Amino acid sequence: MSDSGFASLPQPPYYAVIFSSRRRDGDHGYAETAQRMEQLVAQQPGFLGVESTRDASGFGITVAYFDSEAAIAGWRNHAEHAAARERGRNQWYDHYELRIARVERAYGGPRTDQASLHA
Amino acid sequence: MSDSGFASLPQPPYYAVIFSSRRRDGDHGYAETAQRMEQLVAQQPGFLGVESTRDASGFGITVAYFDSEAAIAGWRNHAEHAAARERGRNQWYDHYELRIARVERAYGGPRTDQASLHA
Repeated sequence: MSDSGFASLPQPPYYAVIFSSRRRDGDHGYAETAQRMEQLVAQQPGFLGVESTRDASGFGITVAYFDSEAAIAGWRNHAEHAAARERGRNQWYDHYELRIARVERAYGGPRTDQASLHA
Repeated sequence: MSDSGFASLPQPPYYAVIFSSRRRDGDHGYAETAQRMEQLVAQQPGFLGVESTRDASGFGITVAYFDSEAAIAGWRNHAEHAAARERGRNQWYDHYELRIARVERAYGGPRTDQASLHA
């Protein structure tokens, strides 16, 4: 993830893993694992980028982008990621929803040169 | 949007509009317009649900779900929504990215009956 929060992605088509979640109270090792997963996913073949945010109430959305369904499967089958997901189900999340989507079109704005005036 | 933050969606396939954005400082009418857009989009034919979150740094992700590309086009062409987007470009956002995707698969967890114990 860049400092700005935005992922730099190629032209579509590519794939999105949309993960929305509500955290339980308390860290229970979450922050450390989340940081580790961010490092690991960036090393996955076919990984394109990720955007993530969570509000003060504990509701968050992370969207990870991959170049193919095979890349998503590779990340899903990563042993350390599988262990983290198990902890997520048991310790960290009240509830989550995971949606796999094929990105067809993408647009950005305002122009980056405008945005930089306000950065 | 439900109180929990999660959208209740049908089985895929359906479409997702993934909007990530970084806010500028100051409200400038943003909160009122955001609330109005949430009411308006819920009345759109083909609208399925929306999930939205923004962190303390001003980076947010909103994912709106629709049953078809035609429904997305209908919302894009709504005059009041178009006016709000223009204000967004000029007043509210340093930068945003918009990605249109077709959701192929979806999963949820932990089980709702478990989640309710922690609600």
